[in-house]
Amino acid sequence: MKRRHLLPLALLAGAIVAWQRSSAPNAASPVAYPEGYRSWTHVKSTVISPAHRNFANTGGFQHIYANTEAMVGYRTRTFPEGSIVVFDWIEMRDRNGAFEEGPRRQLDVMVRHARFASTGGWGFQRFVKDSKTEVATAPSPEQCFACHDHLRKDGLILSTYRD
Amino acid sequence: MKRRHLLPLALLAGAIVAWQRSSAPNAASPVAYPEGYRSWTHVKSTVISPAHRNFANTGGFQHIYANTEAMVGYRTRTFPEGSIVVFDWIEMRDRNGAFEEGPRRQLDVMVRHARFASTGGWGFQRFVKDSKTEVATAPSPEQCFACHDHLRKDGLILSTYRD
Repeated sequence: MKRRHLLPLALLAGAIVAWQRSSAPNAASPVAYPEGYRSWTHVKSTVISPAHRNFANTGGFQHIYANTEAMVGYRTRTFPEGSIVVFDWIEMRDRNGAFEEGPRRQLDVMVRHARFASTGGWGFQRFVKDSKTEVATAPSPEQCFACHDHLRKDGLILSTYRD
Repeated sequence: MKRRHLLPLALLAGAIVAWQRSSAPNAASPVAYPEGYRSWTHVKSTVISPAHRNFANTGGFQHIYANTEAMVGYRTRTFPEGSIVVFDWIEMRDRNGAFEEGPRRQLDVMVRHARFASTGGWGFQRFVKDSKTEVATAPSPEQCFACHDHLRKDGLILSTYRD
């Protein structure tokens, strides 16, 4: 009896491992969704208004949030391992010149970690709308890095903290 | 010798107490400056754009921040004692339709505490620009309360948390 059960058990174990891998969040991505970022420090904001030439694709609020490690970086301009910066895109509604927040357009994340050596020590990821698992196919992390690297002054984080 | 020193010592002690009272922050105000609020949770934002009829006096970003107690209130709509909500007014600069943050216009604070029973259980205060001590003479806390009380739906906090 015992021997007859070994093969099915081994197959079942293999299937469970395979399922865990494929259903893991962001299995295809090295950057995880930044759980809890809405309670992190709000760094600053900008707004792309209807008068801007890129309003159709980028219009609305852009809020930046930083975790504790990244706030050390904003103060020293040297971002330690574990720093996470979130760029939160929120669409807008124009009420007679008063702009209100609408639905989420997308969520960009940068994570400082040695495993991202090929992109300047930072991992990049864009999450679609409110999804914690669906990521944008473009821009790729390499494209994100190339542009940040081109624009950089003292690092790949382009923003500064507004007191 | 001892007796001769008693009166000067008493006068000195009285002077120290008087000095401490007069130099205490917001001695004239029951609502203190909300130290550390920039690391509290960012509740939501609005923007008053140049197209708005009140732009001259209210134009720019309006960011709302809440401490831990107030975040309980935003989730339950019952704000516990110690709740503090900050309404942060930041002027804006228009760069070809991209709005950037400028200097601080003013900082409005609401504090939930039983000692503010005459204004609905909330204390109100407006700090001028970046000052932690200079407060606006108008609107008065009673005027703040009257308007919030008029606009209220389920409490004096008019905003809702944006996830």
